[in-house]
Amino acid sequence: MQIVKLVEENTPDPKVRRIFDDIKATKKTDRVPNIWRALAVHPDHLELCWTRLKAIMSPGKVDLLTKEIIALAVSATNGCEYCINSHTAAVQKLGLDREAYGEVLAVIGLYNQMNKLADALQVEPDIVPTPY
Amino acid sequence: MQIVKLVEENTPDPKVRRIFDDIKATKKTDRVPNIWRALAVHPDHLELCWTRLKAIMSPGKVDLLTKEIIALAVSATNGCEYCINSHTAAVQKLGLDREAYGEVLAVIGLYNQMNKLADALQVEPDIVPTPY
Amino acid sequence: MQIVKLVEENTPDPKVRRIFDDIKATKKTDRVPNIWRALAVHPDHLELCWTRLKAIMSPGKVDLLTKEIIALAVSATNGCEYCINSHTAAVQKLGLDREAYGEVLAVIGLYNQMNKLADALQVEPDIVPTPY
Amino acid sequence: MQIVKLVEENTPDPKVRRIFDDIKATKKTDRVPNIWRALAVHPDHLELCWTRLKAIMSPGKVDLLTKEIIALAVSATNGCEYCINSHTAAVQKLGLDREAYGEVLAVIGLYNQMNKLADALQVEPDIVPTPY
Amino acid sequence: MQIVKLVEENTPDPKVRRIFDDIKATKKTDRVPNIWRALAVHPDHLELCWTRLKAIMSPGKVDLLTKEIIALAVSATNGCEYCINSHTAAVQKLGLDREAYGEVLAVIGLYNQMNKLADALQVEPDIVPTPY
Amino acid sequence: MQIVKLVEENTPDPKVRRIFDDIKATKKTDRVPNIWRALAVHPDHLELCWTRLKAIMSPGKVDLLTKEIIALAVSATNGCEYCINSHTAAVQKLGLDREAYGEVLAVIGLYNQMNKLADALQVEPDIVPTPY
Repeated sequence: MQIVKLVEENTPDPKVRRIFDDIKATKKTDRVPNIWRALAVHPDHLELCWTRLKAIMSPGKVDLLTKEIIALAVSATNGCEYCINSHTAAVQKLGLDREAYGEVLAVIGLYNQMNKLADALQVEPDIVPTPY
Repeated sequence: MQIVKLVEENTPDPKVRRIFDDIKATKKTDRVPNIWRALAVHPDHLELCWTRLKAIMSPGKVDLLTKEIIALAVSATNGCEYCINSHTAAVQKLGLDREAYGEVLAVIGLYNQMNKLADALQVEPDIVPTPY
Repeated sequence: MQIVKLVEENTPDPKVRRIFDDIKATKKTDRVPNIWRALAVHPDHLELCWTRLKAIMSPGKVDLLTKEIIALAVSATNGCEYCINSHTAAVQKLGLDREAYGEVLAVIGLYNQMNKLADALQVEPDIVPTPY
Repeated sequence: MQIVKLVEENTPDPKVRRIFDDIKATKKTDRVPNIWRALAVHPDHLELCWTRLKAIMSPGKVDLLTKEIIALAVSATNGCEYCINSHTAAVQKLGLDREAYGEVLAVIGLYNQMNKLADALQVEPDIVPTPY
Repeated sequence: MQIVKLVEENTPDPKVRRIFDDIKATKKTDRVPNIWRALAVHPDHLELCWTRLKAIMSPGKVDLLTKEIIALAVSATNGCEYCINSHTAAVQKLGLDREAYGEVLAVIGLYNQMNKLADALQVEPDIVPTPY
Repeated sequence: MQIVKLVEENTPDPKVRRIFDDIKATKKTDRVPNIWRALAVHPDHLELCWTRLKAIMSPGKVDLLTKEIIALAVSATNGCEYCINSHTAAVQKLGLDREAYGEVLAVIGLYNQMNKLADALQVEPDIVPTPY
């Protein structure tokens, strides 16, 4: 199903055009991924989303591969097909090999199970983190 | 609420006793976390869970901090209080400082949002990973 | 995949026939949506679902567009493709234009993010509603 | 459990101070809700979150009550206690009375059920929205 | 937090009174569970919920214990504390002993893991059920 | 999308080969379901998953049909298409007829609704199970 008409890359809207250009430059690709072309139906929201994603996914104390692994863990837990696809491609491009990918997957599966067991058993917290 | 009576650490059940000892030795703590004492109501299931968790969380190609960050991302996405608590304590112990923790949190929040936008817009996949 | 054979609109089952007619009359459409034809494999359950949906979605203190927007918010949060499709069509038919749809989407995305941050941080409630 | 030390309202950090002031001015309250004091452990993330929330929740084509109802629907579907509490207080303050609140709740419950039935039955989409 | 004032069992509202009586008679208890006292803030919704629950949970081709086990599986997967508590009490009352409870829990945990692995790997369906 | 290359049934890897043979023997089918061929990209994880699933799904105090019904309830609640398909086929093969399937579905839908109402209303637990 097609919920919105994807906005064309050569759209005359100057704000959208500028963001599309920034997306391509930042991601070093020659085409704008569908999610951004769909979000462009509301240019202000597109800008809010892209600006924030760019800030959060830029180099910091946590490296980009770890950030993309987190994205994959969240997306798999939510069962978001588009996002699983996109973040699997990203971790691959950043060098996560087959064996390491298998380990990441194992951890995702493991804690989806353990979360539900802890909920079902209504286990009281016992390991207290020192507040950050 | 208390769904099950937590099994005492000095339980006479030899299988549970052996697993509890292994948990304490592996985690280098002097007490058994509540989740394992609760799972011990069914010793065979306790063994299946612990054996598998120990195997998946042992050193491999992905380092332990990254594995615990994945566990935190999954637990936050599922909203499992016990697990959020436990894995926040774990990443802290493994050296994730306040700033890096803030970045991890930002990525978790970001993709929970992006997942739902991609779902709502029913965006067709466009970035094809080379199959692993 | 096809889990159940969709029941034909001209089914000889009088209960199902009567409900199908009511669905078409209520929704002012000339065909029965697939979800109802699938639920019809168990006529009593079909009746329970339809009767209740009709009652809850009938005019009240909350207008129909707001109710369909709620339905879209729930469906996007759950990632239910059939329902996202159906409720997007409904809000569109009820007059939600492109800009307003973009705003609705932005709010859905925003709180899916904020929910997970609040969970991850285990923030204690501070704003107390006067009980209804 | 307390994952982070809530940042004090009179923190010396000028960026956090400025955002806290803006939160109080925008929300017309004399104290900063806990979620913002918790997010302040990472000032840049706090700023990204607040700026975006303020933009999305400002007056637009969709009125504020509808936006808060969407927030409540998302929060209930995700089971986020802090957020359910906060957005119930918000809709109440914006005038949603007991009867209308009951209707909102009924719609939230209804579509959480219908979503899972549609998923379980793997119903094929049949109502095609004209793409926005 | 208390979102609504629980309606008293001796409320003067005749519709609510009648439903409360039916709940106590059907469940063979001498007090009305909190969920029904909370739903009673909107008597019509209370009636829709109770009538339907009573119909679905009455004896049929699937026995009551299996129905309560399904309720527990759903509630644990959703992480609903009130419901986990309530349905654990129900299966216990219906005779599910400690060992069988442990097996039920194991199955719930197992498929929460397998679901996420199947999603993450985007496995194509291969086992085709004959449509019901 | 294809995240991993499904491992061929006649793979030269002896560990995978042995597990594939065990899967076919245990399930009494002549082909290995796709999920196991996908998990085989990481043989150790495949072994952990299969060994555990085989143990949990073997005859115990809870019969196999009930276990598969739990699997279906979990899968529908999570909206996992592959798993819904697979477990619907399983309950069908184990003799759950159309009417009973309709009842199972009704219970799954009912409690997905009730869970969210209990969460939204933040109902305090009142029915205390005797701890297992």
